[in-house]
Amino acid sequence: MHFGDQLTAAIREKGVAACVGFDPVLEKLPEAIRPKDGASDQDAAAAVVAFGRGVISAIAPHVPVIKINIAFFEPLYAAGIDAYHELVRASHEAGLLVIGDVKRADIGHTSTQYALAQVGGGSNDVAPEAIPDAITINPYFGIDGVKPFIDVARRHGRGLFVLVQTSNPSAVEVQGLVLPDGLTVCQHVAKLVERWAGESNVVGESGYSLIGAVVSPRDLASTVVIRDLMPHSIFLVPGFGAQGRTAEEVSKCFKSDGTGALVAASRSVIYAFATGAHYAKHGEDWAACVGSGAKEFVDSLRSVLPAVSASA
Amino acid sequence: MHFGDQLTAAIREKGVAACVGFDPVLEKLPEAIRPKDGASDQDAAAAVVAFGRGVISAIAPHVPVIKINIAFFEPLYAAGIDAYHELVRASHEAGLLVIGDVKRADIGHTSTQYALAQVGGGSNDVAPEAIPDAITINPYFGIDGVKPFIDVARRHGRGLFVLVQTSNPSAVEVQGLVLPDGLTVCQHVAKLVERWAGESNVVGESGYSLIGAVVSPRDLASTVVIRDLMPHSIFLVPGFGAQGRTAEEVSKCFKSDGTGALVAASRSVIYAFATGAHYAKHGEDWAACVGSGAKEFVDSLRSVLPAVSASA
Repeated sequence: MHFGDQLTAAIREKGVAACVGFDPVLEKLPEAIRPKDGASDQDAAAAVVAFGRGVISAIAPHVPVIKINIAFFEPLYAAGIDAYHELVRASHEAGLLVIGDVKRADIGHTSTQYALAQVGGGSNDVAPEAIPDAITINPYFGIDGVKPFIDVARRHGRGLFVLVQTSNPSAVEVQGLVLPDGLTVCQHVAKLVERWAGESNVVGESGYSLIGAVVSPRDLASTVVIRDLMPHSIFLVPGFGAQGRTAEEVSKCFKSDGTGALVAASRSVIYAFATGAHYAKHGEDWAACVGSGAKEFVDSLRSVLPAVSASA
Repeated sequence: MHFGDQLTAAIREKGVAACVGFDPVLEKLPEAIRPKDGASDQDAAAAVVAFGRGVISAIAPHVPVIKINIAFFEPLYAAGIDAYHELVRASHEAGLLVIGDVKRADIGHTSTQYALAQVGGGSNDVAPEAIPDAITINPYFGIDGVKPFIDVARRHGRGLFVLVQTSNPSAVEVQGLVLPDGLTVCQHVAKLVERWAGESNVVGESGYSLIGAVVSPRDLASTVVIRDLMPHSIFLVPGFGAQGRTAEEVSKCFKSDGTGALVAASRSVIYAFATGAHYAKHGEDWAACVGSGAKEFVDSLRSVLPAVSASA
């Protein structure tokens, strides 16, 4: 299966281009399952898995995609990596597509190793079902750092999201540098992504490539430019909710037909049990709070993006 | 201890600014220890550890630093991560400084998680001795993706090398873009690195910062420019040997007093047993071949960089 087609179909089926980001911080886990101070990595990882399984069940009725950020698993070392892949597999079993937010990249022969690990066929101990459907990668090395990811992803029917414009304020220090042609560095990266993503062997029947882009809108005008520069890429748009992008900015990441983007919210959903309104409704049932956080996210996304649900 | 001071002292002690890169590919391991097809991740990781222990013992008399690339461990998942940290610890026991080549980066609160894992104090199961002394990071997010790494590294007496100019041909696609002021993107990144690295709370008694830079020289003129832009940073210079930088290009990464850079060679040393000359001398004793590869690397580096050994 082609990842661009698979993602397009999954969004259509659930009727909303929404993705929940899973960034588990131990101290923020629900009290009932939070690991004790001094817990072994194994015990802490088990708590993260328990939390993740609850989140997955709670969000699966509402959204087509979960984005699991490996950075939050790495502090638990080997136990964390096992937990990450266990939750990728659990997400698949719940019918979710999975984006592994790993932001890897290196020079060519090293990128190949990252690609085999993160978006390949697994190993003798890690099943293909425990590997994400797509991952995020960093473009700083240019095409020969990216090419091995494309080759491995294509071979295994998986996808990529290249970092183009990130959501942090200081992203402009590098990404926002203006070139003599008036484009910023990240707009230039967008042109490179289109060069890679528009090749016929990576574009699916949906018209979308297996190569998408991470784009956090900064302002309306530049978002329109960057959307036009990458017609073949589905945008992964972070920061709905906690990172505070406006509805109009986010809407410009979509094409006029309502396709072309996937909007992510993380903390506002997975920690919904810590916010008054959800708690008032569901009390100590943290999974129910997460479900109602996911529903709220999806409803608010639908309300600002009528075209998205209309495409269902 | 301050990482810039520690690295400066280690180079002085061994009398050469050389670093061996450990990038283990299973298929290239010495036949005697190569894992069988279909080996479990655990067994394959054990082979990598056996190889690594041999390499560490062979190179420790010759070089002050080993750079271990985590990308080559990730395809073995949890077992690979255990192997990586076991070899970091073994390197420390052999008296080597360790650079973890991990090339991580993300937005702020996610970078904090990567930093805690890769350059922090370890966990309840991974001892501080099993954590590298420094790691490589990617600058694409600007300062707020980098700052958490600086904070965590400083707190734990560790260091960083920010990717500035990488060795792959297509690096120019992004890093080589020329800005209106005539500087390239990577030279602009070099200015940012100096802004971060030159702050008084990260500069050690040696005059060098705990924040270094990965710089692969592209040509003489631009290397002089980039050396001048980052006076407080020790350069990690890849590509001596297999990646084919000339001696003169590499020498421009050093300051006139012979300090300021650490030159890495990987495949030409760790796979020395696969090359005719070393094999002819040592036969099936692959560790002896690696030792003689390390000696050859160090000798050739000393011959082209007299100032470096003179600073000993």
